[in-house]
Amino acid sequence: MLDPLLATHAVRRLIDLALEEDLGRGDVTTQAVIAPDVTATAHLVARESLVLAGLGVCTAVFQRVDRAVVATELAKDGDRVAAGATVASYDGRAASLLAAERTALNFVQRLSGVATLARAFVDAAAGFPLRIADTRKTTPGFRLLEKYAVRMGGASNHRADLGSGVLIKDNHVAVAGGVRAAVEGARGRVPHGLKIEVEVDSLDQFEEALAANADIILLDNFSLADIERAVAQVKARLPRPLLEVSGSVTLRRIPELARAGVDIVSAGALTHSARAVDLSLDIAIAGQGK
Amino acid sequence: MLDPLLATHAVRRLIDLALEEDLGRGDVTTQAVIAPDVTATAHLVARESLVLAGLGVCTAVFQRVDRAVVATELAKDGDRVAAGATVASYDGRAASLLAAERTALNFVQRLSGVATLARAFVDAAAGFPLRIADTRKTTPGFRLLEKYAVRMGGASNHRADLGSGVLIKDNHVAVAGGVRAAVEGARGRVPHGLKIEVEVDSLDQFEEALAANADIILLDNFSLADIERAVAQVKARLPRPLLEVSGSVTLRRIPELARAGVDIVSAGALTHSARAVDLSLDIAIAGQGK
Amino acid sequence: MLDPLLATHAVRRLIDLALEEDLGRGDVTTQAVIAPDVTATAHLVARESLVLAGLGVCTAVFQRVDRAVVATELAKDGDRVAAGATVASYDGRAASLLAAERTALNFVQRLSGVATLARAFVDAAAGFPLRIADTRKTTPGFRLLEKYAVRMGGASNHRADLGSGVLIKDNHVAVAGGVRAAVEGARGRVPHGLKIEVEVDSLDQFEEALAANADIILLDNFSLADIERAVAQVKARLPRPLLEVSGSVTLRRIPELARAGVDIVSAGALTHSARAVDLSLDIAIAGQGK
Amino acid sequence: MLDPLLATHAVRRLIDLALEEDLGRGDVTTQAVIAPDVTATAHLVARESLVLAGLGVCTAVFQRVDRAVVATELAKDGDRVAAGATVASYDGRAASLLAAERTALNFVQRLSGVATLARAFVDAAAGFPLRIADTRKTTPGFRLLEKYAVRMGGASNHRADLGSGVLIKDNHVAVAGGVRAAVEGARGRVPHGLKIEVEVDSLDQFEEALAANADIILLDNFSLADIERAVAQVKARLPRPLLEVSGSVTLRRIPELARAGVDIVSAGALTHSARAVDLSLDIAIAGQGK
Amino acid sequence: MLDPLLATHAVRRLIDLALEEDLGRGDVTTQAVIAPDVTATAHLVARESLVLAGLGVCTAVFQRVDRAVVATELAKDGDRVAAGATVASYDGRAASLLAAERTALNFVQRLSGVATLARAFVDAAAGFPLRIADTRKTTPGFRLLEKYAVRMGGASNHRADLGSGVLIKDNHVAVAGGVRAAVEGARGRVPHGLKIEVEVDSLDQFEEALAANADIILLDNFSLADIERAVAQVKARLPRPLLEVSGSVTLRRIPELARAGVDIVSAGALTHSARAVDLSLDIAIAGQGK
Amino acid sequence: MLDPLLATHAVRRLIDLALEEDLGRGDVTTQAVIAPDVTATAHLVARESLVLAGLGVCTAVFQRVDRAVVATELAKDGDRVAAGATVASYDGRAASLLAAERTALNFVQRLSGVATLARAFVDAAAGFPLRIADTRKTTPGFRLLEKYAVRMGGASNHRADLGSGVLIKDNHVAVAGGVRAAVEGARGRVPHGLKIEVEVDSLDQFEEALAANADIILLDNFSLADIERAVAQVKARLPRPLLEVSGSVTLRRIPELARAGVDIVSAGALTHSARAVDLSLDIAIAGQGK
Repeated sequence: MLDPLLATHAVRRLIDLALEEDLGRGDVTTQAVIAPDVTATAHLVARESLVLAGLGVCTAVFQRVDRAVVATELAKDGDRVAAGATVASYDGRAASLLAAERTALNFVQRLSGVATLARAFVDAAAGFPLRIADTRKTTPGFRLLEKYAVRMGGASNHRADLGSGVLIKDNHVAVAGGVRAAVEGARGRVPHGLKIEVEVDSLDQFEEALAANADIILLDNFSLADIERAVAQVKARLPRPLLEVSGSVTLRRIPELARAGVDIVSAGALTHSARAVDLSLDIAIAGQGK
Repeated sequence: MLDPLLATHAVRRLIDLALEEDLGRGDVTTQAVIAPDVTATAHLVARESLVLAGLGVCTAVFQRVDRAVVATELAKDGDRVAAGATVASYDGRAASLLAAERTALNFVQRLSGVATLARAFVDAAAGFPLRIADTRKTTPGFRLLEKYAVRMGGASNHRADLGSGVLIKDNHVAVAGGVRAAVEGARGRVPHGLKIEVEVDSLDQFEEALAANADIILLDNFSLADIERAVAQVKARLPRPLLEVSGSVTLRRIPELARAGVDIVSAGALTHSARAVDLSLDIAIAGQGK
Repeated sequence: MLDPLLATHAVRRLIDLALEEDLGRGDVTTQAVIAPDVTATAHLVARESLVLAGLGVCTAVFQRVDRAVVATELAKDGDRVAAGATVASYDGRAASLLAAERTALNFVQRLSGVATLARAFVDAAAGFPLRIADTRKTTPGFRLLEKYAVRMGGASNHRADLGSGVLIKDNHVAVAGGVRAAVEGARGRVPHGLKIEVEVDSLDQFEEALAANADIILLDNFSLADIERAVAQVKARLPRPLLEVSGSVTLRRIPELARAGVDIVSAGALTHSARAVDLSLDIAIAGQGK
Repeated sequence: MLDPLLATHAVRRLIDLALEEDLGRGDVTTQAVIAPDVTATAHLVARESLVLAGLGVCTAVFQRVDRAVVATELAKDGDRVAAGATVASYDGRAASLLAAERTALNFVQRLSGVATLARAFVDAAAGFPLRIADTRKTTPGFRLLEKYAVRMGGASNHRADLGSGVLIKDNHVAVAGGVRAAVEGARGRVPHGLKIEVEVDSLDQFEEALAANADIILLDNFSLADIERAVAQVKARLPRPLLEVSGSVTLRRIPELARAGVDIVSAGALTHSARAVDLSLDIAIAGQGK
Repeated sequence: MLDPLLATHAVRRLIDLALEEDLGRGDVTTQAVIAPDVTATAHLVARESLVLAGLGVCTAVFQRVDRAVVATELAKDGDRVAAGATVASYDGRAASLLAAERTALNFVQRLSGVATLARAFVDAAAGFPLRIADTRKTTPGFRLLEKYAVRMGGASNHRADLGSGVLIKDNHVAVAGGVRAAVEGARGRVPHGLKIEVEVDSLDQFEEALAANADIILLDNFSLADIERAVAQVKARLPRPLLEVSGSVTLRRIPELARAGVDIVSAGALTHSARAVDLSLDIAIAGQGK
Repeated sequence: MLDPLLATHAVRRLIDLALEEDLGRGDVTTQAVIAPDVTATAHLVARESLVLAGLGVCTAVFQRVDRAVVATELAKDGDRVAAGATVASYDGRAASLLAAERTALNFVQRLSGVATLARAFVDAAAGFPLRIADTRKTTPGFRLLEKYAVRMGGASNHRADLGSGVLIKDNHVAVAGGVRAAVEGARGRVPHGLKIEVEVDSLDQFEEALAANADIILLDNFSLADIERAVAQVKARLPRPLLEVSGSVTLRRIPELARAGVDIVSAGALTHSARAVDLSLDIAIAGQGK
């Protein structure tokens, strides 16, 4: 079932867009070859080891095509699934299952790919209080879904959009005339429930951010040594700002960043470069007749 | 400029969906830090060597946010672009440029990623009359755009959707009672402008497909030896069917498949697992005032 | 029930558009005259002999207005229905039935009109292997539905849209510099599953098309004598192209074209000039009370 | 130009729906054969004598595909146009003109067909104060456009939808327990700016409608003799109700109905069975180069 | 349940728009604090005395978020509800109830506010045949819903939109060259089921309107004395026009206007300035478990 | 001009919804009375003293109806405008101006009503560092616009939606098993850029919230004395939480709350019960001609 909190109008529009682009002119092959009253069962099977995400979207696609399709979900989002495991089965008209197949798979393969990669990042930080976070480098139209997949992989979400978090970046700093001016200008002008985060690209800017009492400081492309210096400097402050690291973060660097003691590492790769994992649909014809 | 043939309602809806998900609650940071009358120029710069695709979409995003943004495109889709090259510049209100930045980049990075990968496949087959084709394993909502990116990388498109090509797959064969029955049943029931393609997974099925006079035969997960046998067998036929190879196709296997003499190789990886390439936006504040 | 392959987003949008334009401000008459708890049964009756098409759309309209309406379909699309026959009945709130009536009828009368006309064309070619095909001269917004109605009348579909078939017309020929150049230029640039069709308006152009090995040749406004010459000329070729005739095709000309031996006749009239057939709704009040 | 009062969201959605269904997968022929920088001029020419309607929609389609297309309109909606006359020309990219052609024509041919038929009805009543009106038997999605075409043909509009007019029909009468009860029940429950019209199918019901002071009485399928009786009876009343005739109204019957002295004749055929008139697009290649 | 006549596409789009704007990024609080399997019952309670309107919309919001929510409606639209009364209860997942709460309340509080105010106006005219009517001064997007709420409060609807009623206002009069010219020009050019209403701002214009046989005359900002003069003047006419009063109409003036004998008083305040009435949701956790 | 950050897809959809509901069937009066080539100038005039908001939306409505309307804005959002002042003028076709008038006014009257009320609240706190904030009790579909109007009145925004702020309310507390458990549970599960706010309804709960280090504590319906106790208690803490007051907040209570020293007062009345302020459109016919 599609989690109500995911079943927003935007996600429904994306599902409709996806079905329209594949199925909007009908399915000439199925129409020519499959009698309308043939029924079948389709098993959704993992072809490699993966973390599942998007099963509800997959089910929603089948049922959007044909509301009479009956779904049996055998695993749930966030589960680690072994190669060969069946994660769901769908019963209904063969024509409907064949028509929905590709679109349904395109969603669940992609979202499980994101969850699987997120899980690898989180596992690499095991034992440390490090938060692995995503970014806004998501597939256009998939923001809500990919951020959900990131959580299913055990990682955390950074701000959802430009309206739900303050992040002052280099260009904002340039216009405002410095880190300090930018941070102080923002305070009092943004909703009071939002912390103020500022991106810095040098230890000098970092000092300014500290002086301005930024709530979160994003160390952009800092060397490991500079990261360690920054961590050391905030340790004793009360309240102390959170430290976030970003920029060219790879899976391999997670352990050293975890050890360095930063609070958050954010990585665009979680969403912009995850590959689709392999899940396929095995369809068994069930019979014919009304 | 967005090519009119790409500027379909579906693509416009995708752009709106993408902007709405990032910008639909406003931009609290820009609103707090950037005065509305500051203007700027943003340069879109390649950070690695790549094949460009989606520049028109990128421009369309900026101009959907603010129709007063002026775009200067310095390269065109399909161009090979060197690291460091500026491919476009955008002039307008700083607030508009900052608000559109992430969404615009998310499109052009992804589409250029597809074009760059497609180009690598095509280059690997250089010197052979082999057609590299995509599949329907595209990002939901991106079918038209990703198929366009594939062409920009020099590769070819397989059918656009379930309505614009006949491909009889294993499940259709199972229901129809064999390859031959399926192919013959389809003929006369599909629009006369479409060729009939059938997927086979053994040489026996291949023989059946030949007997049924299929227009295109898709060899699914065939060994190289079996592929060579199939090619040998069709050489002398008139009309002879096209041979397509698919299943676990990697860049590394392209040369041997090209040498084997098949007509088409289709690879889902072109679209489902291309990574985003690195393009960024350098924003220079131009001034203030009306 | 609406066939899942017809229940695309575009068809749903068209149904919504149609209901919105008739019912979007409510129904002032029903609201003033009919108590909300009166229930009724509506019988959909053919008032003339016809071929049914669009019954599922008709049902979908009633159930989109009020999902509690219960439908009993007594005939199915493609059936020849005699004048006076009841093809479906709908039970539910009288106010809902009255509100949906006109929109539901507008769909089923129009689509059955197309199916009935298509059937007349097909019957006129009985005994010959002639395929009667539609064109893209469909009512805007009705492409999928009207092409479905054409099939329900026993005729065939030409390409669904500009993306699912290649048809090189006079203007393409003019730009390309001749029939042969156009056909040869197209080959290798279009998806490999599509045949290449070219329109010719003289026997000279026809020769060029043969020389270029076009897959299908469309004889546009040819005299019967010229059609016979063209048929004679391709008989012995292997592979031989399909011959299609178009231009001012009326029902009366079908027998002579069938005898002439062409493969396909395509007629815009099937969709652009079919009249609505007469189906009406007889409503019987069932009772009152919850 | 599209009249602002026609350019509603519903009409825009219909245009988008129409373009999406024809062009949503691109135009494989044009893409393969026409270089992107070729420009052309397209002349919209009447191929038969007709009353023009929908020229603005036609133009809107071209400019929705490509906003750079320049339109020159040489006639205006409502004009009687002779066979052979050019009514508009469009200049722009050849690829854009070819892509939009079919959809643009599908609109203007259909709407001009409605206007031409409406004009024939109006002309048949020339010299009499008879109003020819349309009905709600319009093509789904085309309500506003077809009612506009009816006006362009010189005829009048009946109510736009169920919310903008009161028409008590047989089923309403049955539930309300008679014509008089229905009319009197409605008065005071509908917006005060709407007249109350009631449909009657016998002279007895007609008497009841008179007694109830209905504002308009619709004589449904009355014989000519009964129509004349009804007219005679209302002549002296003050205020006198309007008399409308409907049911199986053909062009041929208009003169006798006009002479009979009724106020309005309404005919579903104006919209549900008008054939498309012949307008075509002649495209002349203008040149090449940016 | 949402009345089918209210469940138009426009109302569904408004509900989607409202949910998207509140819930489109998920609900970070509920997600963090409420386990997905906790269920609850929510009671919708009136916190002040009010006339209920929009309960069906409220229910539709809950069920759009989560179709598994079970609604029990204990009152119906149009009911006068005492402070403290429970008007509905909703059972389902706690997360769904919490997510939908604010949006559902925002609808029902606003619509009940309109109904409550309308009822006060109607009660102030008790004993007189005065019709209290709304205007087009409604909240954008809420036209159908607010006009429904007005009826639930016992008042009447003026025209639904610009297409369902003729109201000639000062600007129309100015262009047409006087009240009489405007009224006479309109007759014969508008659908015959619509009465012709004209707004006048002086007794002189009133005379003109009478002379032109306007069906309804709107006295705009007339003094009580002038209103009485106008009423006296039409009393004996046959057919006599309806008299409507508008302009700065407050609740306090209703009795004197009722006594003056006008037919209709229309007041924009019913919709543009009604305050939200107080209804709240009491949520009781029901348990946990599947 | 409509601020690009307001011109989101949701706002455009709301404008379309509003125009469709008023103008979707055309404008029968204007169509009958106003010749299409009459042009006019419309002046938007304040009829009372107000704070302007939504002028850009007003302009967008006119230009959505007719893109040829030329707007001259003479004031800007946030300005205090005196009764009688002209804030904008619009030049164009009279038919377009008349058709758009009501919808345009409905927007700007409502939004200026919100800004004017917000300004009154802010002025009442003059001299104190008190932040006046809105809530999520906005008109469905107007979230972004009404929050913008609040800022134009000088007040602040609370969270934009359920995804951009954490507010743990009574029901969350009940499920979580207490204030402390709820706050601590949320920390680490919400995006790190969001502060954690908790609503308390007693001093005991307030203590718990302090102990749990909530970032913001919302005192719900506290007496003035209890508010003062809470303020006293946090004064010396570092970091000290922000204190927000809500519940039955009226304009009259603002000074005492400001003096009490709380940080924020949030009031639903700013948006759910603001009345429309009086702005009207004076239309002067400019002439006739092309």
